Amino acid sequence: MDFLNELKNLKKQVFFEEKLEIPRNYDKIVIAGMGGSGIAGKIFQEMYTDKPVFALDDYHIPEFADEKTMFVAMSYSGNTEEVIAATREAIQRGCSVSALTSGGELESIVENVIKVPSGLQPRSSLGYMLMPLINSFLKVSSEAIRKAGDLLDDLDSRNEWIKEEAEKIFERELIPVVYGFSPYRSIAYRWKTQFNENAKVMAFSNYFPELDHNEIIPLKQTYRKDQFRFYTFGCSTDNRITKRIHATGRVSGIELEHVETPGESLVEKMFYLIHYGDYLTYHLANLRKIDPMDVSAIEDLKKILKG
Amino acid sequence: MDFLNELKNLKKQVFFEEKLEIPRNYDKIVIAGMGGSGIAGKIFQEMYTDKPVFALDDYHIPEFADEKTMFVAMSYSGNTEEVIAATREAIQRGCSVSALTSGGELESIVENVIKVPSGLQPRSSLGYMLMPLINSFLKVSSEAIRKAGDLLDDLDSRNEWIKEEAEKIFERELIPVVYGFSPYRSIAYRWKTQFNENAKVMAFSNYFPELDHNEIIPLKQTYRKDQFRFYTFGCSTDNRITKRIHATGRVSGIELEHVETPGESLVEKMFYLIHYGDYLTYHLANLRKIDPMDVSAIEDLKKILKG
Repeated sequence: MDFLNELKNLKKQVFFEEKLEIPRNYDKIVIAGMGGSGIAGKIFQEMYTDKPVFALDDYHIPEFADEKTMFVAMSYSGNTEEVIAATREAIQRGCSVSALTSGGELESIVENVIKVPSGLQPRSSLGYMLMPLINSFLKVSSEAIRKAGDLLDDLDSRNEWIKEEAEKIFERELIPVVYGFSPYRSIAYRWKTQFNENAKVMAFSNYFPELDHNEIIPLKQTYRKDQFRFYTFGCSTDNRITKRIHATGRVSGIELEHVETPGESLVEKMFYLIHYGDYLTYHLANLRKIDPMDVSAIEDLKKILKG
Repeated sequence: MDFLNELKNLKKQVFFEEKLEIPRNYDKIVIAGMGGSGIAGKIFQEMYTDKPVFALDDYHIPEFADEKTMFVAMSYSGNTEEVIAATREAIQRGCSVSALTSGGELESIVENVIKVPSGLQPRSSLGYMLMPLINSFLKVSSEAIRKAGDLLDDLDSRNEWIKEEAEKIFERELIPVVYGFSPYRSIAYRWKTQFNENAKVMAFSNYFPELDHNEIIPLKQTYRKDQFRFYTFGCSTDNRITKRIHATGRVSGIELEHVETPGESLVEKMFYLIHYGDYLTYHLANLRKIDPMDVSAIEDLKKILKG
């Protein structure tokens, strides 16, 4: 599948209806995953706060993980070494373990597996990874899902205007900086990682209101300010955050690009923003004449680690 | 107090012996704090994983916060609006609430208060904020504390060599990027915020192993690579992380500056690294002829938010 078709695959993924098996007696959730597979856990952690949820992106599980912990291992390939290590610990600790994967070692060490279709880059499987979490824990209407799918379809058919945005980054070789806020902090981080992986550009993310306590200072002081391009999302429903976004622009004098979001529900807005970032980084890769699929740096690294 | 004396105050703070009152029946901890006051909760969250700990840097408490939640409000001034809002919610939700503050509104709404000495910038009170958490939950020997104090004292008396490091950033107006790893992720973030607040330079942090799944790609592709200066810490005790740090340098070709850490215990290494970052950013401010104390951007922002 070429990369454009991978991107277009997302609208199918939001209709992935699998659910995780919820243990009878549990009081916290640990979701292990790295990079393109781990982002689903990070996004879910913001969406669901009825129980403590920990998005784990490391080798070791926290000490508190016990028999009353629901542990979800996420690795698209099924062979991510950090996730395998954490999952082995979780099994030994007596957690209720399940996994989302297309196969690999993970499939062989975990009993409770939701298999997702293979053939994609891990970062293009976000819908497959995220929807089982949403389906299992959140009440999202089928209408909201359908509308999210429609928004993705719209973006798939018309996104040339996002290319114009990519050109602004390209022309001056800018460093994108994406500012999120709850519950979209991880969407900002997703953009950062898509800039890294697809367009191969350095990029960073941060979030309101925390950035108003530190990063706002160099923003105002113009340290290399004209070398960045700043983004935020136009979907805050908290008036205090909206005020901060505007005040931050005013105090710092930076041009803060607000990406507006159609859609009513969180799921619609979220998937729209995810896909906007997909296309922004895809177009930037094309402008830079760079293959968005190429992740040879990660492959080189794995070779060294194994050697 | 001038800023240099604020920095030198830290070695006194590690001997701050206050302890939080631990509720009889609790199963999770939420620590609310922003910016320079919030960093203590972020650091503690990595040090202590026996129970779920949430470092909260937002207005709202998570849904799971209940009567079995120990809630610690941290605000040096006592007037941080996000912390006040979250604390009011925590009181209403029936959490066991205590606070660490030098006064302000927080002192008047929370019964259980540990007062810390006033007169510092919030970011210079890290020892006062962090030690009560460490004293209450971690077994740290008084010898380790004493040694940490000695290391800070050493840095206070000899740090001109850190100025040489600051000069490298200054000469080419580089953007510092600091790579941590567990349990030093938040120390990398602390450096980032100290670069922001003291030296008024844009700076970013990230952590192993997650960055090997995305950021390594633009590192290799040399996107503006010569405009950054990369740091990591020389104190990983996990062989897999150490291997990753070296492999990341090899694959990407970046010059990754390893900051070595004297000391045996986690507390020694941690405070040493914190203070190294203090001096690095202080010297950079001086080289840039910028007042490290000046946080007028934050004050301007507050005025707009109140107006």
